[in-house]
Amino acid sequence: MMEKIEKWLLKVNWGEMMVQSWMIFLKLCIILIIFFIVKTIGKTVISRMFDQAAKNKRMTTNRVVTLQKLVLNLFSYILIFVFAGIIFELFGLDIKTLIAGAGILGLAIGFGAQGLVSDIVTGFFVLLEKQMDVGDFVTIGSVSGIVEEVGLRTTHVRAFDGTLFYMPNREISTVANHSRGNMQALVDIGIAYEESIDEALAVIRSACESVKEVNENIIEGPNVLGVQSFGSSEVVIRILAKTTNMEQWGVERELRKAIKEALDEAEIEIPYPHQVHIEKKVKVMA
Amino acid sequence: MMEKIEKWLLKVNWGEMMVQSWMIFLKLCIILIIFFIVKTIGKTVISRMFDQAAKNKRMTTNRVVTLQKLVLNLFSYILIFVFAGIIFELFGLDIKTLIAGAGILGLAIGFGAQGLVSDIVTGFFVLLEKQMDVGDFVTIGSVSGIVEEVGLRTTHVRAFDGTLFYMPNREISTVANHSRGNMQALVDIGIAYEESIDEALAVIRSACESVKEVNENIIEGPNVLGVQSFGSSEVVIRILAKTTNMEQWGVERELRKAIKEALDEAEIEIPYPHQVHIEKKVKVMA
Amino acid sequence: MMEKIEKWLLKVNWGEMMVQSWMIFLKLCIILIIFFIVKTIGKTVISRMFDQAAKNKRMTTNRVVTLQKLVLNLFSYILIFVFAGIIFELFGLDIKTLIAGAGILGLAIGFGAQGLVSDIVTGFFVLLEKQMDVGDFVTIGSVSGIVEEVGLRTTHVRAFDGTLFYMPNREISTVANHSRGNMQALVDIGIAYEESIDEALAVIRSACESVKEVNENIIEGPNVLGVQSFGSSEVVIRILAKTTNMEQWGVERELRKAIKEALDEAEIEIPYPHQVHIEKKVKVMA
Amino acid sequence: MMEKIEKWLLKVNWGEMMVQSWMIFLKLCIILIIFFIVKTIGKTVISRMFDQAAKNKRMTTNRVVTLQKLVLNLFSYILIFVFAGIIFELFGLDIKTLIAGAGILGLAIGFGAQGLVSDIVTGFFVLLEKQMDVGDFVTIGSVSGIVEEVGLRTTHVRAFDGTLFYMPNREISTVANHSRGNMQALVDIGIAYEESIDEALAVIRSACESVKEVNENIIEGPNVLGVQSFGSSEVVIRILAKTTNMEQWGVERELRKAIKEALDEAEIEIPYPHQVHIEKKVKVMA
Amino acid sequence: MMEKIEKWLLKVNWGEMMVQSWMIFLKLCIILIIFFIVKTIGKTVISRMFDQAAKNKRMTTNRVVTLQKLVLNLFSYILIFVFAGIIFELFGLDIKTLIAGAGILGLAIGFGAQGLVSDIVTGFFVLLEKQMDVGDFVTIGSVSGIVEEVGLRTTHVRAFDGTLFYMPNREISTVANHSRGNMQALVDIGIAYEESIDEALAVIRSACESVKEVNENIIEGPNVLGVQSFGSSEVVIRILAKTTNMEQWGVERELRKAIKEALDEAEIEIPYPHQVHIEKKVKVMA
Amino acid sequence: MMEKIEKWLLKVNWGEMMVQSWMIFLKLCIILIIFFIVKTIGKTVISRMFDQAAKNKRMTTNRVVTLQKLVLNLFSYILIFVFAGIIFELFGLDIKTLIAGAGILGLAIGFGAQGLVSDIVTGFFVLLEKQMDVGDFVTIGSVSGIVEEVGLRTTHVRAFDGTLFYMPNREISTVANHSRGNMQALVDIGIAYEESIDEALAVIRSACESVKEVNENIIEGPNVLGVQSFGSSEVVIRILAKTTNMEQWGVERELRKAIKEALDEAEIEIPYPHQVHIEKKVKVMA
Amino acid sequence: MMEKIEKWLLKVNWGEMMVQSWMIFLKLCIILIIFFIVKTIGKTVISRMFDQAAKNKRMTTNRVVTLQKLVLNLFSYILIFVFAGIIFELFGLDIKTLIAGAGILGLAIGFGAQGLVSDIVTGFFVLLEKQMDVGDFVTIGSVSGIVEEVGLRTTHVRAFDGTLFYMPNREISTVANHSRGNMQALVDIGIAYEESIDEALAVIRSACESVKEVNENIIEGPNVLGVQSFGSSEVVIRILAKTTNMEQWGVERELRKAIKEALDEAEIEIPYPHQVHIEKKVKVMA
Repeated sequence: MMEKIEKWLLKVNWGEMMVQSWMIFLKLCIILIIFFIVKTIGKTVISRMFDQAAKNKRMTTNRVVTLQKLVLNLFSYILIFVFAGIIFELFGLDIKTLIAGAGILGLAIGFGAQGLVSDIVTGFFVLLEKQMDVGDFVTIGSVSGIVEEVGLRTTHVRAFDGTLFYMPNREISTVANHSRGNMQALVDIGIAYEESIDEALAVIRSACESVKEVNENIIEGPNVLGVQSFGSSEVVIRILAKTTNMEQWGVERELRKAIKEALDEAEIEIPYPHQVHIEKKVKVMA
Repeated sequence: MMEKIEKWLLKVNWGEMMVQSWMIFLKLCIILIIFFIVKTIGKTVISRMFDQAAKNKRMTTNRVVTLQKLVLNLFSYILIFVFAGIIFELFGLDIKTLIAGAGILGLAIGFGAQGLVSDIVTGFFVLLEKQMDVGDFVTIGSVSGIVEEVGLRTTHVRAFDGTLFYMPNREISTVANHSRGNMQALVDIGIAYEESIDEALAVIRSACESVKEVNENIIEGPNVLGVQSFGSSEVVIRILAKTTNMEQWGVERELRKAIKEALDEAEIEIPYPHQVHIEKKVKVMA
Repeated sequence: MMEKIEKWLLKVNWGEMMVQSWMIFLKLCIILIIFFIVKTIGKTVISRMFDQAAKNKRMTTNRVVTLQKLVLNLFSYILIFVFAGIIFELFGLDIKTLIAGAGILGLAIGFGAQGLVSDIVTGFFVLLEKQMDVGDFVTIGSVSGIVEEVGLRTTHVRAFDGTLFYMPNREISTVANHSRGNMQALVDIGIAYEESIDEALAVIRSACESVKEVNENIIEGPNVLGVQSFGSSEVVIRILAKTTNMEQWGVERELRKAIKEALDEAEIEIPYPHQVHIEKKVKVMA
Repeated sequence: MMEKIEKWLLKVNWGEMMVQSWMIFLKLCIILIIFFIVKTIGKTVISRMFDQAAKNKRMTTNRVVTLQKLVLNLFSYILIFVFAGIIFELFGLDIKTLIAGAGILGLAIGFGAQGLVSDIVTGFFVLLEKQMDVGDFVTIGSVSGIVEEVGLRTTHVRAFDGTLFYMPNREISTVANHSRGNMQALVDIGIAYEESIDEALAVIRSACESVKEVNENIIEGPNVLGVQSFGSSEVVIRILAKTTNMEQWGVERELRKAIKEALDEAEIEIPYPHQVHIEKKVKVMA
Repeated sequence: MMEKIEKWLLKVNWGEMMVQSWMIFLKLCIILIIFFIVKTIGKTVISRMFDQAAKNKRMTTNRVVTLQKLVLNLFSYILIFVFAGIIFELFGLDIKTLIAGAGILGLAIGFGAQGLVSDIVTGFFVLLEKQMDVGDFVTIGSVSGIVEEVGLRTTHVRAFDGTLFYMPNREISTVANHSRGNMQALVDIGIAYEESIDEALAVIRSACESVKEVNENIIEGPNVLGVQSFGSSEVVIRILAKTTNMEQWGVERELRKAIKEALDEAEIEIPYPHQVHIEKKVKVMA
Repeated sequence: MMEKIEKWLLKVNWGEMMVQSWMIFLKLCIILIIFFIVKTIGKTVISRMFDQAAKNKRMTTNRVVTLQKLVLNLFSYILIFVFAGIIFELFGLDIKTLIAGAGILGLAIGFGAQGLVSDIVTGFFVLLEKQMDVGDFVTIGSVSGIVEEVGLRTTHVRAFDGTLFYMPNREISTVANHSRGNMQALVDIGIAYEESIDEALAVIRSACESVKEVNENIIEGPNVLGVQSFGSSEVVIRILAKTTNMEQWGVERELRKAIKEALDEAEIEIPYPHQVHIEKKVKVMA
Repeated sequence: MMEKIEKWLLKVNWGEMMVQSWMIFLKLCIILIIFFIVKTIGKTVISRMFDQAAKNKRMTTNRVVTLQKLVLNLFSYILIFVFAGIIFELFGLDIKTLIAGAGILGLAIGFGAQGLVSDIVTGFFVLLEKQMDVGDFVTIGSVSGIVEEVGLRTTHVRAFDGTLFYMPNREISTVANHSRGNMQALVDIGIAYEESIDEALAVIRSACESVKEVNENIIEGPNVLGVQSFGSSEVVIRILAKTTNMEQWGVERELRKAIKEALDEAEIEIPYPHQVHIEKKVKVMA
């Protein structure tokens, strides 16, 4: 290789090479300019089309946004790969023959591509089966949050604390979508063993009724189910309600406040942990 | 490729191209209209057929709904793939030759298809063996809820808090179906170590009897089994009952309330946690 | 494809097609009738044969039920696949050539079939080695309950709370069969550190003896082993007994009751948690 | 196929078929009789041979039982497969050609056979390396108990509570054999922080000595190691002893009893949990 | 081989060999010098280019640093492999023929290369999709910290305690990026059951307001949500606020201090754990 | 096959067969005798060679024992396979042709052999890199104990409680060898918050010094590091020391005893758990 | 084979065989001597070269030691394989033809080699990317300690308790290197709810300042961040500082001691766990 380098240094026609380099550089600039023009126009056209679709209200707004982001994502991927192909050709490299002559590497690349295909296939079915739209509150594996984008290769989910998760689509198996119907508000409250259960149930029921009258997010009245379990120091009463989507936490908080105040008023004890103490004075030491 | 683009720009018969584009657009519209007509008719026909089947009562309603949703799901998948094929052909692309010439990509696609086949095979056996019907309360892996759809590729389960789970069928291995017969109500109650076990058992038994007389969801009488374990501060008594499906929680709640009130009346203590205190006054510091 | 559709629409001999459709529909009906006749006869014959076998008492009843359910299961699977084959042929589809020409899909189907074969092979050995019969109480992985069916592809286990588990046979590895001999009843009881261990052991032993005289489910006398461990507030005594199958929990409950009452009578304390309190009055704040 | 059935119905020579069926049934009966004769003779011969070997005491009894069960297991497997082959042939089916023509299924069967081979290979090495014999107390994965059979494909282990585990041999990786030498008895006892450590050690040592004199299962004297750790309320002393196999629990129980009684006698406190209480009377509310 | 060695020892032309060795050594030195020159020049050129880009502000600074480090990393990898190739050739070894003739080893190397390709592919998409830039605070798997470099094969993340993590890119699946927008400050505070909830909410709200006026990192006002849960001794109130990135912890600390002081001033109790004591004097022992 | 059996029964020359059987039996006996002679001589020779090596002290005794056991293990494996081959040949079976004609089974056997090769390769490197010798105290995965044998296929580790673990070598990945240098003794001791830290450190330091003077197992003086953490009721002081191998536990016990006694003497409190009690007499119930 | 053995016994020329054996033994000795000479010379030369490099200070000492150990490791591996090849040849075995004719075994060996290649590839990149040097404090998976050797196949890490870990390089994925920059000292201290937060912060700040003046290991001043969390009985204050590498624990200990003493002096309470006791005298039992 040493000799090759020497020969190469001598053999080179430096002038012509300069010219060629300049030509390539010029072409590169033109390609980049075209790239940016195509990108800008394409993005504008796609966005307009979806805005129009949104106005006609043929689909829900969430669905429109999901598809818009997907198509933009798809468009930018195709653009990048096409221009990468052009630039490779500019430098005289042909990708197909490169891959064909790869041998062992080809196998490795095949496995790499497998992951990519797996991403795309999963993403395709997530979209086709409308498992989630942009704006839905979902839980996928250990990640919970609002979907920001369902892309070709990755799905973006923003957690409530502001963190943005980038999930490769192949990581998605079971999707728990919390935005597909009414949700449930669940409140457990413990009353003292000494209190009458019937009285407590009555007080809680009336408190729930008064909350329901005010709060229109409650769809199916808070049901006071009864004695859910015997705690070590309290009898646990469970209350369930159907609420409009994403309002379950607010309803739970209101119910908790109302029930606490009602029980206080009726002088029904919400007990602290209890303990029976037995005094034993054996073996008193000096 | 740069030169190709230049040549292509010159060579193109812009007029003819316009016409062709217009033709393709027209065809596209016609195909889409046919697509929506076929879809609407197909769905109506399938729904009618199953409604008829449901009236004849040859199958349980749950089973009919399960099959109806499955056939609709199957129908829409076939429709989408057929029209996708037509549209690809419209643009002059032949899927078969695309896949055949894929080489390395073909392998990757094969692996992707494997997941799909695995979904369908599992779904097929779940249906054939009637492991679950729409409306059943099931637990699959870590997901519990009511089955909403057993589809070609995914099963939809709605949890009690309103969340909708989309599970790829391949994720289903052991299915725990809680809607295949009577269920069990189980109540554990602790009585004080100082109480007579025999007396407590008698009181609990009579309380259970009185509940049974009123509640027709109890199929096999609440059996008071005896001393289940020695807790740190209480002797635990276990009560079991067979109930009609999905009523086990209601029965448990009623039993708990009745037993608590009976024990209160008989003045048998349900003890708080106990602790023996030994006072020691060594090393008193100033 | 557009043109093909047009041509096809013209070319079709609508009258002949009607006739053919009608013929196919008639054949379909005949096949379905034959299907139901064969199914009914087959099931009756199989059931009769096994009932006969059960009477002759060549095998245990559990074993007969196991095999009967298996053969019925096998019979219905074969029937379904044979008739599916006939119906496919009716519509002019040949499964063999379909699969042979599948290419990439063939691979995917092969993997799918692998799971099926794995189910059948495992099921075969479970039966051949008599690992479990219908009616046995088993634990497989995280599932515990009574075996209801050992099928070709799935095993059905009913948990004590009424849930029915459908397990693909491939999920079965180590089988814990709790119905293969006598079981053990184990009771741990804590006595106070202040009590004499010898006295306590004597009291417990006599209580165990009196239980044994009454309860015939105890096969090997309850052995009072001695001091099993030092708890934080109690000296733990362990008692073991061999009981007839499935009666271990009943025996444990009886032993617990008897020992508790014997210790109460002998005034040996079963201690509550103890704690030594040291009063310290440093840094009294206003 | 419909036509084939019709033709077949006409073509059949019903009389000849009856005769043939009768012949096959007769042959089947003869084969079954031979099967049971060979089985009985074979099992008797094998059992006798191993009984003879056991008498000559060339091997330990455990080893003889292990090998006897294995050979019986092997014998019954070979017998079943030979007779299955004969019966298949009776009905004119040739297994080899069936498998050869299986194609995709062949692959699946190959994977199934892989599991089987894996079972046999592991079982072979477990036996060759004498990792466990029938009667040994072993722990394999999460299963603990006495080995009942080391078979061709499965190993049977009976847990102390009476449950029988069927483990496929491939599930066996690390074997913990608790019957390969003397075992260790370990007792931890806590004394009060206020006691003299030296005195306590002396008392415990003499208690251990007296146990050792009586109990011949102790091989290497109980060593009182010293202060193992500082508990929150006690100074923990550790005692170790070597015992004969399976007697470690009995020795531990005896040591515990003896040490407890010795400490009581020497008035050295085994402390209950301690807590220092600081009274604070700030913010007294009405 | 012994004979070969003897022959080889005799046959060798020691003088010529010396000369050749010297030549190789000289060439090696020259190559190394060129290597260091190219490395230095290359690194300078790349750094300059990116500094220029950073000045023009076409990209965010973080993005520029990310790309700069990546290109430097890429450059050094290519350099090393080119020079390794030259040195191998110097010693007369041809890598291609070495690998081609590897046989079994080739397979093994293929698998090794697979890991490498997997690293590069993942890294490529992480960069293309801008999942993280140098300086971002991310969580990948169990590793949390600031990204220091997104390289060709590894990503470097520095945890807050100063540890530097080297992660192979293939280990990256879901990326949690905490630097993609505003973050959330969350404070939970417990008030006594005896206090008025309304009063407490008012006090906390005014405290939050006063913090907001001072602290400009709070973007969306601290919302006092209400009763989040019933603790065993306290009613838990939750407060949420949107803050600028990375300032959430500071805001939380300020909010906690302000709320604590406001509650103290309003004499609303933040309760210690409560316990109800019941004195029982049964079984007093001497 | 039925006919074959009949023909075979007639065709057999029973006399000649008897003779042949007898010949084979004789040969078998001779082979077994040779087997036992070769085994005995081989084992003796190998043992002698290693004893000689041990005397010459070219290697550590542990290493000699490791290699001796390995060579014996290797020798017995080779012997068994050679004699198995001879016996197969005696019955006219050729293993090579058996395996070659195995087809599908061959694949399965190949996978089985893979496990075996994996065992041997890992074992080879464990020995070559001297990762552990017989007598070393190691932790491999969840198994801790003294190495008893590093064999061709399995490694034997004896836990301190007497259990013998048989580990297939492939299960060995990271080896934690606790016998490769001095070990560390670590003692944590808590003193009361009321005590002076400086005084306590001084007392502990002098106690450590006095232990060091007596105990020669301490190599690097016990260092009193300072305040390791704030416990809920105590200030934790950490002491570290380097000790000779396997003596760390003994040193820890001695240090604990000495420090405890020194603190007692200096009247520095080792505190019990503390708790501040606030009396509250609100809501006194009748 | 029996006959072969007989023939072989007769055919053997015992005299010539003796001579040949002797020759082989002689050659073996010579080879071994050469082996030890080459090994000794090689090791010396390599060590010298690296010592020289260390003196010239072109690289950090850690890096030199890392490379020195690696090259020695590489050298001994190559030596062993070369001499193993020579010895095999001595006995007339050719490794290449052995492996080529291995068939099924070849596949198994290929998989074994795969593990080896994976080790070497990972090791190569760990070194190239300077992920760790000898002497660095690293955490790899669940192993923490000082790197002792980064070898061809294994990495040796010594934990602080003296245990030496042998990790196959393939087990290394994410490397946490704690020796790549300054580390963080983190101290959490709880003060009583009754104390003024402002006062406490001031006291802690001045204590931190005084530590910083003395201790030169602190690089970035201990920052008193503020109220980190509300504990059940204390307000937790967090203090952070940047320290020189490996000195973080020492700094933490000093900070803890200084803060404790400062708070004591200022009479700010570090509270014990608090509990509010409510006396209740209902249901007093005799």
